[in-house]
Amino acid sequence: MAKNGINPALAERLKRRNALPAPGELTARLLRGDRAALSRAITLVESQHPEHQALARRVVNACLPHSGKSVRIGITGSPGVGKSTFIEALGGYLIDDQKERVAVLAVDPSSPVTHGSILGDKTRMQELSHRLEAFVRPSAAGRELGGVARTTRETIVLVEAAGYGVVLVETVGVGQSETTVRSLVDCFLLLLLPNAGDELQGIKRGVVEMADLIAINKADGDHLPAARTARRAYRDSLHLFPPRSGGWSPTVHLMSAQERTGIAELWEQGIQRYLQHTRSNGFFADQRQQQSAAWFERALDARLRRLFSDRKPLMDALAARRRAVLDGTTSPFVAAEELIELFLRELRG
Amino acid sequence: MAKNGINPALAERLKRRNALPAPGELTARLLRGDRAALSRAITLVESQHPEHQALARRVVNACLPHSGKSVRIGITGSPGVGKSTFIEALGGYLIDDQKERVAVLAVDPSSPVTHGSILGDKTRMQELSHRLEAFVRPSAAGRELGGVARTTRETIVLVEAAGYGVVLVETVGVGQSETTVRSLVDCFLLLLLPNAGDELQGIKRGVVEMADLIAINKADGDHLPAARTARRAYRDSLHLFPPRSGGWSPTVHLMSAQERTGIAELWEQGIQRYLQHTRSNGFFADQRQQQSAAWFERALDARLRRLFSDRKPLMDALAARRRAVLDGTTSPFVAAEELIELFLRELRG
Repeated sequence: MAKNGINPALAERLKRRNALPAPGELTARLLRGDRAALSRAITLVESQHPEHQALARRVVNACLPHSGKSVRIGITGSPGVGKSTFIEALGGYLIDDQKERVAVLAVDPSSPVTHGSILGDKTRMQELSHRLEAFVRPSAAGRELGGVARTTRETIVLVEAAGYGVVLVETVGVGQSETTVRSLVDCFLLLLLPNAGDELQGIKRGVVEMADLIAINKADGDHLPAARTARRAYRDSLHLFPPRSGGWSPTVHLMSAQERTGIAELWEQGIQRYLQHTRSNGFFADQRQQQSAAWFERALDARLRRLFSDRKPLMDALAARRRAVLDGTTSPFVAAEELIELFLRELRG
Repeated sequence: MAKNGINPALAERLKRRNALPAPGELTARLLRGDRAALSRAITLVESQHPEHQALARRVVNACLPHSGKSVRIGITGSPGVGKSTFIEALGGYLIDDQKERVAVLAVDPSSPVTHGSILGDKTRMQELSHRLEAFVRPSAAGRELGGVARTTRETIVLVEAAGYGVVLVETVGVGQSETTVRSLVDCFLLLLLPNAGDELQGIKRGVVEMADLIAINKADGDHLPAARTARRAYRDSLHLFPPRSGGWSPTVHLMSAQERTGIAELWEQGIQRYLQHTRSNGFFADQRQQQSAAWFERALDARLRRLFSDRKPLMDALAARRRAVLDGTTSPFVAAEELIELFLRELRG
C-alpha cells in the first residue's frame, strides 16, 4: 500500500488512460480499424479543449490520405417516417449481402423540435450497433449546427480511414440541418410516407429539391396502393423540374423498412445507379471537390467571426449595430463598414 | 481670354460639376424626386472610390427613414422568355392604370452566359425609359455579384426615398443571381414559356422553388392551348410541395407581354393577392427584417474577408491552402485554423 492509500500501479494506469494519446500511435491504430482508437479520435474532434483540438487536427490530417474511398449517403425524413428502422434494414443488407462495413453518423443540433434525440436513444438501432461491421455514433448533443457540421465532416474522414465503405448520415427534415448534410454527402435520400402531399407538411420545401432519391417507406399491406399513387405523383412532378447539376433526374422507390422489402432494389436500382451515373460523368468527384472548397470558405468565415465574438467590446458593438439594422436606422453595409473599423482598432490594440 | 487659354467661368463650372456634392443637399434634392440627384447618388453608391463611398454611406443612411414604402418585385426567366417586353407592359400598366411610379433595376454580374447585357442595351425598354414616372437603371457592368448585390440593395433605398412605389428588379434565371435577387425583394416572379418542362431547361432547379408566382408568357394565339396545359401541369406539381414560409402557395398565371393581355390579372389576382396575404399574416414585414439581418451578416463576412484579400502575403497563403484543400492534403478546418493564426500575426505587425 503506497502513501495516500492509492495503489501506484492503479494510479499510473488511470493517469495513462486520461493522458492524451500520441497522434502517430492513435492514427496507426485507427488505420488498422481499431474501434476504440476511432472512438477516441472522434471524441478529440468533438472536444472544445484547445489541446485536444490541436491533437485532433494532426490525426485528421494524417488520416486524410486514407479517406475518401467510401460512399457517403445522407438520409432525411420527418420524425415518424421510420428512419432508424430503415437504417437498420439498409445497414444489415449492406453488411450481409454486400459485405460492406457501415458507419452511421447523425447531424442533429439540439433543437426545440427534435430535442437532439437522433441516435441519442440507446435503444435505437440495437441490431446494427451490435454488429462488428457497423460503427454507430450518436451526434454530439448540445452543439450548434456549425460545430456539428465540422465534427461530422472530420468524423467522416476518420471512419473512412478506419475502413468503413459506406457512411450513412442521418438527419431530420425539419430544420437547417438537411442543407448541411447535403453538403457533406455524395447522395441524398429523402424518406416519405405513402400519402402524396400530406406527408410533406413536416418537410422543408427545399428538401424535396435537394433529394437525389425518394424512397416511400411503409409500402406494405394496405398501404401499397397509396404508396404506388404517391410514387406516380412524385415521378410526374419531379419530371417537370430540370435535371440537377449532375444530369441526374431523381428517382422514386417503394420499400418497407419494417418488412425489409425493397431495400435491395433501392440500393441497386436507386443508389448504385445514381453512383454509376455521377461517377461516369465526373460529377461525383467534382461535387466532392466543390464541397471541400465550400467547407473551407465557410470554416474561414466562421473563424474570422469568432475573432469578433471572442472580444467583449466587439461583441457588444456587433449586437448594437445588428439592432440598428433591424430597426431600419442604419444600412447593413454601413453598419458592417463601421464595425470593421472598430475591429481593426481593437486588434491593433 | 484667361491665361492658359481656359475660360475661368467654364473652368469653375467644370470644377463644380466634378466636385462632390454636399450630402445634405444631395439627399434633399433626391427626397424631392430630382432624377439627376437620384442618378448621382446611385453613381456614388456604385463607385469604388473611398471618398465617394463615405459620401454614399451618409446619403444612404439619410434616405433610410424615407425608404421601405415600395413593393419590391423580383423578375426572372431564361433569356428569350420576354422579360424586357413584360417589364415594359407591367410598367406601363402600373403608371397608367395604377398611377404608380416605377423603378427598374437589374442584377446581372457580367458572366460568360449573359455578357452583362441586362438593361445595358439602350434600345431595350425604350417606352418605359422615356416615361417621367419611370426610372430605369442598367446594372453596373463588370462587377462581381457581391458588389452588385450591395449596390442594388442600396439603390432600392434611394429610389424608394425618391418616391418610387414599385421597384422591379430583373435578373436572368441561369446563375447565382436569382438567389441574390430573392433576398432583395418582397415577391419573386418567374416567367416561363408555354411548353411545360422544356422551357425549364435553362432555369436552375432551385429557381422554381423560389418563385412566389409563375407567369407563362406568350400565352396568345396558337400558343394558348399549350400555355393552358403548362398552367395545369405547374398547378398540379406545385400543389404537391408544402407551402412556403409565408403560408403562400405559388400561383400560376397566363399572360402575353406582346399583346399586353393578362397583365392586369397578374397584378391584381397574383401580385396583389400575394401582398395582401403576406401583409395580413405579418410575413411581409418579417421577411424584410430577415433580409436586413442576413445582408448585415453577409456584409460583415465580406468585409472581414477583404481584410484578407487586401494583404498580399495573406492572399497568397489563402490561395495555397485552398489548393491543398482541393488536393485533399489538408482538411478545410485545419487550413482555416492555420490561416487565422497567420492573419493575427500579420494584422498585429
